[in-house]
Amino acid sequence: MDWKNYENLTMLSDFYEFTMMNGYLENNMENEIAYFDLYFRKVPDDGGFIIVAGLEEIVKYIQNLRFNEEDIEYFRSKKMFGEKFLNYLKNFKFECDVWAMPEGSIAFPNEPLMIVRGPAPQAQLIETFALLSLNHQSLIATKTNRIVRAAEGRVVMEFGARRAQGVDATVLGARAAFIGGATATSNTLTDITYKVPAFGTMAHSWIMMYDSEYEAFKAYAKTFPHNCSLLVDTYNVLKSGVPNAIKVFDEVLKPLGITNMSIRIDSGDLAYLSKKARKMLDDAGYEYCSIMASNSLDEYTISDLLEQGAKLDGFGVGERLITAKSDPVLGGVYKLSAIEKSDGTIIPKIKISENIEKITTPGFKTVYRIYDKQTGKAEADLITLHDEEIDETKDLEIFHPIHTWKRKTLSNFTTKKLLVKIFEKGKLIYDLPSLEQINKRRDEQLEEQWEEVKRFEHPHLFHVDLSQKLWDIRYNLLSQNR
Amino acid sequence: MDWKNYENLTMLSDFYEFTMMNGYLENNMENEIAYFDLYFRKVPDDGGFIIVAGLEEIVKYIQNLRFNEEDIEYFRSKKMFGEKFLNYLKNFKFECDVWAMPEGSIAFPNEPLMIVRGPAPQAQLIETFALLSLNHQSLIATKTNRIVRAAEGRVVMEFGARRAQGVDATVLGARAAFIGGATATSNTLTDITYKVPAFGTMAHSWIMMYDSEYEAFKAYAKTFPHNCSLLVDTYNVLKSGVPNAIKVFDEVLKPLGITNMSIRIDSGDLAYLSKKARKMLDDAGYEYCSIMASNSLDEYTISDLLEQGAKLDGFGVGERLITAKSDPVLGGVYKLSAIEKSDGTIIPKIKISENIEKITTPGFKTVYRIYDKQTGKAEADLITLHDEEIDETKDLEIFHPIHTWKRKTLSNFTTKKLLVKIFEKGKLIYDLPSLEQINKRRDEQLEEQWEEVKRFEHPHLFHVDLSQKLWDIRYNLLSQNR
Repeated sequence: MDWKNYENLTMLSDFYEFTMMNGYLENNMENEIAYFDLYFRKVPDDGGFIIVAGLEEIVKYIQNLRFNEEDIEYFRSKKMFGEKFLNYLKNFKFECDVWAMPEGSIAFPNEPLMIVRGPAPQAQLIETFALLSLNHQSLIATKTNRIVRAAEGRVVMEFGARRAQGVDATVLGARAAFIGGATATSNTLTDITYKVPAFGTMAHSWIMMYDSEYEAFKAYAKTFPHNCSLLVDTYNVLKSGVPNAIKVFDEVLKPLGITNMSIRIDSGDLAYLSKKARKMLDDAGYEYCSIMASNSLDEYTISDLLEQGAKLDGFGVGERLITAKSDPVLGGVYKLSAIEKSDGTIIPKIKISENIEKITTPGFKTVYRIYDKQTGKAEADLITLHDEEIDETKDLEIFHPIHTWKRKTLSNFTTKKLLVKIFEKGKLIYDLPSLEQINKRRDEQLEEQWEEVKRFEHPHLFHVDLSQKLWDIRYNLLSQNR
Repeated sequence: MDWKNYENLTMLSDFYEFTMMNGYLENNMENEIAYFDLYFRKVPDDGGFIIVAGLEEIVKYIQNLRFNEEDIEYFRSKKMFGEKFLNYLKNFKFECDVWAMPEGSIAFPNEPLMIVRGPAPQAQLIETFALLSLNHQSLIATKTNRIVRAAEGRVVMEFGARRAQGVDATVLGARAAFIGGATATSNTLTDITYKVPAFGTMAHSWIMMYDSEYEAFKAYAKTFPHNCSLLVDTYNVLKSGVPNAIKVFDEVLKPLGITNMSIRIDSGDLAYLSKKARKMLDDAGYEYCSIMASNSLDEYTISDLLEQGAKLDGFGVGERLITAKSDPVLGGVYKLSAIEKSDGTIIPKIKISENIEKITTPGFKTVYRIYDKQTGKAEADLITLHDEEIDETKDLEIFHPIHTWKRKTLSNFTTKKLLVKIFEKGKLIYDLPSLEQINKRRDEQLEEQWEEVKRFEHPHLFHVDLSQKLWDIRYNLLSQNR
């Protein structure tokens, strides 16, 4: 059987979600209300922030949640699940509330990207998929944005399909790359399904199919005069590739008045070769021919190339983008933060750990971003209890949640809530934005951040603080558990 | 639209495969026969070999190759593809020959894992998917096998779903992990679709849902007496987790005579904690209770733990396995090696590069593995022309393809061809093996390798040499192109 023929992804869940669900039912806890926070502890590549992506897939996953006969038979065959559980699955209906940061949001460590509130078995069930989707797509969007920032306005195209970790990793990875700022993808299926423009021209094989590089270039230029990007490194970039390209431009494109051609260099010393090639093209009157580079690029190699004065107009970025090679995991977690008694009382819950950074923050929360009124720039994020309001007319003192003597008083500020309600008792109440809307949000939120936060090396650590009330709850629970 | 609703993966291809296909058609080359080699240049993590996986998905992909009306309309809308191409797609039929190393094979750099021979547009088309699938699954199988070797016979379970790079990366990644030697997965869908046993018991949330750890353990043990693995690090492993586990074993499992229980430690100093926990369990009479560990494990941390005398019986390995975190790319390439004239003459083709390691080996090939008759161990792989035979009755001198003075004479040997014919003129002529058969092949081929090749640090470089005929072709083409 092929999982792609599977009608929904309900069974894509860690087995322990199902054993726990069964346990909640066997112990008559199916109506207990649980609160979960989804958050991460560390930005990959020691960056300053992440770009959130992956919510759309979670929405689709939740809307398709259902167990078919085959699934129920599977559980029965394990001889460890009770009939109450199997019946529950038969009539499964998702009834949770879900809040989340919209795709394209800028987010920081330890703040909830998603909060789920609902019956324990249901809120538990979606853990695996919610993490998988947000971790993956946010990772790739974040990595891509680093590469795009390094390219300083030059085109970045996602070319990683062949090195991606599976089909989803390329199709949705390319979507995430677009959210990160890439302008195109090599993956045709992503163009069809998500309208991320696909781009590509030729591999070395095209050139090798012909008796000579010149003939190969000429045939290509005649076939695609308006989409002519010639790969110039099959034999020798400067002795053969660029001269043949110029000859073909002269013979085929110039007579047609076409000016949007390019060459691509895929190996060798890209800084040196691009400078020499630029000179040769300029001397031949092709100042308008752009030079693209590919070959194991990422934000570090691109920064280096530009610092060395490489004459490059754009980059095709493959494996290092689509796998986030330098740090290929965003470690989002999904942690119980509270339970709710039948009388509506919310009991905050904490997970202690010998690894200090693994201790959770208890309570039902929300997140505010605080902006300086004069500059419009973001100053801090404040995590509060869900129903706390911030009075914008008064000064606000915030403090570091661990080094509490680090304090800062904010005045003349505005606030914005970062979490949006997506599901209300299981019903979708959120309009999924288009990729254009997502990218607009990304641009706006990037604009709100100081340059220091966007730095590659040792970025400024943006304040993510807890309100006094939330801090007190955490401190008291920690004290009780010592 | 969701790509998972897409009926086949034909459109999962780099856009340039389609521009080249169109180019071949426009230039009347649709019947030219092309030969492609799929191979990689470097083993991830500087390991000695890879374990091949991913062929089954390629077979399914090829069998489902077809373009529907929607796909053809997509190309038409781009206004750059000719009607001849669009008609070709409408009647597309895959007619290539494909040879490949079966899944579970041990393979080395620069030898073909797959050879494709057929009409240029068709052989070109499958490049992206063939690379994607073999690169991904071989990467994960290879990484898993490193972890399994480090665990020295202890259980390794794949627990990475939440950190995988998309759905395919978890479902097929878990399949690949099984081929690498993992005994179970956390991913339920992989159990359903590929029969890789799913395993899991509880998260911290289970414990936090209760008023106390003891109550949570007790409820779990009562619900799952025969599947009782208790997570002991929610509050404090030694002061609370292990004592509560022992109490619950005493109260619930001992009276039932159950002995296959375990505890799991997910944070803190796993060496120290496991030794202390082992002592506490032994003192309480639970010598048979196993201790599992999880928390950012891989072959390096597992080796360290075992060296420190950690008392661990098994490992749940997550993100570092499912993303191959320390080196998350297997860089397979797909290169034109020859074309065939209408009279049947094969013309070898070479790609030159300033990066010496990127120069290809021309010609239509096959690969032999050579075994010492006495030890049964593999001595070398020899890449030859497709129709070359090796005479096992005579001595065979092999030599390093670059440092040609490095020579070795083999006598008293046997040989085996490593590539199997999978498709004959587009028709599948290969029975896809079961996962059990694949794992048997893996075990046999691992057994044939010397321990030195399987070492983590600076493994012995296994000989992968070219026959004299193949070497001559390469040398002559290189000389002509200088």
